[in-house]
Amino acid sequence: MQITFLGTSAGVPTRARNVSGVALRLPQRGETWLFDCGEGTQHQLQRTPIKISQITRIFITHLHGDHLFGLMGLLATCGLAGQGQEIHLYGPDGLEEYVRVCSRISRTTLSETLKIQTVEPGLVHHEEDFSVTCQPLKHRIPSFGYRVTERDRPGKFDVERAHALGIPPGPLYARLKNGERVELPDGRVVEGRELVGATLAGRSVVYCTDTIYCRGAVALSEGADALIHEATFAAEDEPLAVQSMHSTTVMAARVASEARVRQLFITHFSPRYTPDAQVTPEELLAQARAVFPRTDMARDLMTFEVPWRE
Amino acid sequence: MQITFLGTSAGVPTRARNVSGVALRLPQRGETWLFDCGEGTQHQLQRTPIKISQITRIFITHLHGDHLFGLMGLLATCGLAGQGQEIHLYGPDGLEEYVRVCSRISRTTLSETLKIQTVEPGLVHHEEDFSVTCQPLKHRIPSFGYRVTERDRPGKFDVERAHALGIPPGPLYARLKNGERVELPDGRVVEGRELVGATLAGRSVVYCTDTIYCRGAVALSEGADALIHEATFAAEDEPLAVQSMHSTTVMAARVASEARVRQLFITHFSPRYTPDAQVTPEELLAQARAVFPRTDMARDLMTFEVPWRE
Repeated sequence: MQITFLGTSAGVPTRARNVSGVALRLPQRGETWLFDCGEGTQHQLQRTPIKISQITRIFITHLHGDHLFGLMGLLATCGLAGQGQEIHLYGPDGLEEYVRVCSRISRTTLSETLKIQTVEPGLVHHEEDFSVTCQPLKHRIPSFGYRVTERDRPGKFDVERAHALGIPPGPLYARLKNGERVELPDGRVVEGRELVGATLAGRSVVYCTDTIYCRGAVALSEGADALIHEATFAAEDEPLAVQSMHSTTVMAARVASEARVRQLFITHFSPRYTPDAQVTPEELLAQARAVFPRTDMARDLMTFEVPWRE
Repeated sequence: MQITFLGTSAGVPTRARNVSGVALRLPQRGETWLFDCGEGTQHQLQRTPIKISQITRIFITHLHGDHLFGLMGLLATCGLAGQGQEIHLYGPDGLEEYVRVCSRISRTTLSETLKIQTVEPGLVHHEEDFSVTCQPLKHRIPSFGYRVTERDRPGKFDVERAHALGIPPGPLYARLKNGERVELPDGRVVEGRELVGATLAGRSVVYCTDTIYCRGAVALSEGADALIHEATFAAEDEPLAVQSMHSTTVMAARVASEARVRQLFITHFSPRYTPDAQVTPEELLAQARAVFPRTDMARDLMTFEVPWRE
């Protein structure tokens, strides 16, 4: 699982940061899932190794333009590519109307296999290797956070030990890997679980934006390997955050801390925090780290490989 | 009048060329007018000296996404700037519905002074210094070409000659500049028109896209100082042009030639014509120049100052 930030600015693009978009690459599936699609997301994708044809699922948090206005362009490009690419689109009520009206007026040929699903809190998507759930956040309009959870994997089979025990390679290995009790040709009995390491916990990535601090974000993020949380405002601008129902750096870090995540990425920064402003981007990061040290600041086109737990 | 190309690719953006958009700066008014607004137009504007707050009029040729999908983001940015900027938006039937539905669903705060006008062939806008007319083009959906015409200016007043004739500076100068016949204090009579040079013809810029070759484009472009005409396809790909109702390089040059324009810019190139393709961008330009030598190929962020006629 590899996270690539495509846009990290709030509201409007700047020269350095585009509006919201995050790509989650799932190399084992050859697929990329997209979270939000602000204007210029397809342009940003062209600056990464990700192919638009690999995008199979798009999750929209809410319908504000800086999270939405790149969607039609991306779908049009997929449609023009004409590969009959199957895309599943998820988001709040209103998303389907938006796509249908925009494509009717602009005569955009959508992929025939485009499926649009209005999300409700809970399970959004489930397949063998991954599941996706969502939770309502707290914003001026309905907004959802998403969590992608990888399934747990069986531990590693200790081939060397099996060899030392004189177990012949072949079908017996498969049974032992499954944790079965096996009788060897010489009569000895071996427990599979003794040869298999601890289960590898599946990794999880949570995306929470736009929202002010809320319990739903904490619940959704519980124990996540990577939490991407908006931090539109500096701590001293909390009144602005409350008024616009966005988070401060400290609110984002508080969610990470209470949910005991492994890694926090703050993103969605108000363009007011420029390197020569009174509050700089470095200061935003310092504010979050003071509450939750394992914080990084998202930058456009930054990529993070979510590590397995030891 | 200064033309800046913001996007010169057809259908989809490439690394080098964004989708359609042209800015026309009117320095004497401190205003910029925009023609089409593909996705990423506001991003491209950030790479020019043009301020989004200077945009007062936006003319949309047709409602295909590559000419339209940057409009909502641009209007949202204008709305967020909150300067109550008065914007006039012009385009085909369906444009107003598009803007209204998109802003309702995305809760985009539009400038209260946004005015949307559905265009009909003929005069679209008139003010003291400029007028704008439009003509239907020939495309798969209703599409309009626009022509901006500057008003003619009186010729230069010959101050030296007035001085030599012993005319005292002051109110008499103003009357002579207006071409009036004036009696001097010593009884001599002077014709103003003898002291005023030839009238300076107002400049004109025409924007024709998307369209296959059509008489309407020729009529609209008659004698223009600068014609911007789409040339999606190479001459040898005419069957594709006919099928999709786009122009070839030769069709664009033919319009320029028949309309006797001063300068042609071809734009809106299919992404298939890369520098390492069988037909290169250089070849496209050569094809157009073979028919109409005063042709240039538009590039993103290229600026052209429309010269006055001698």
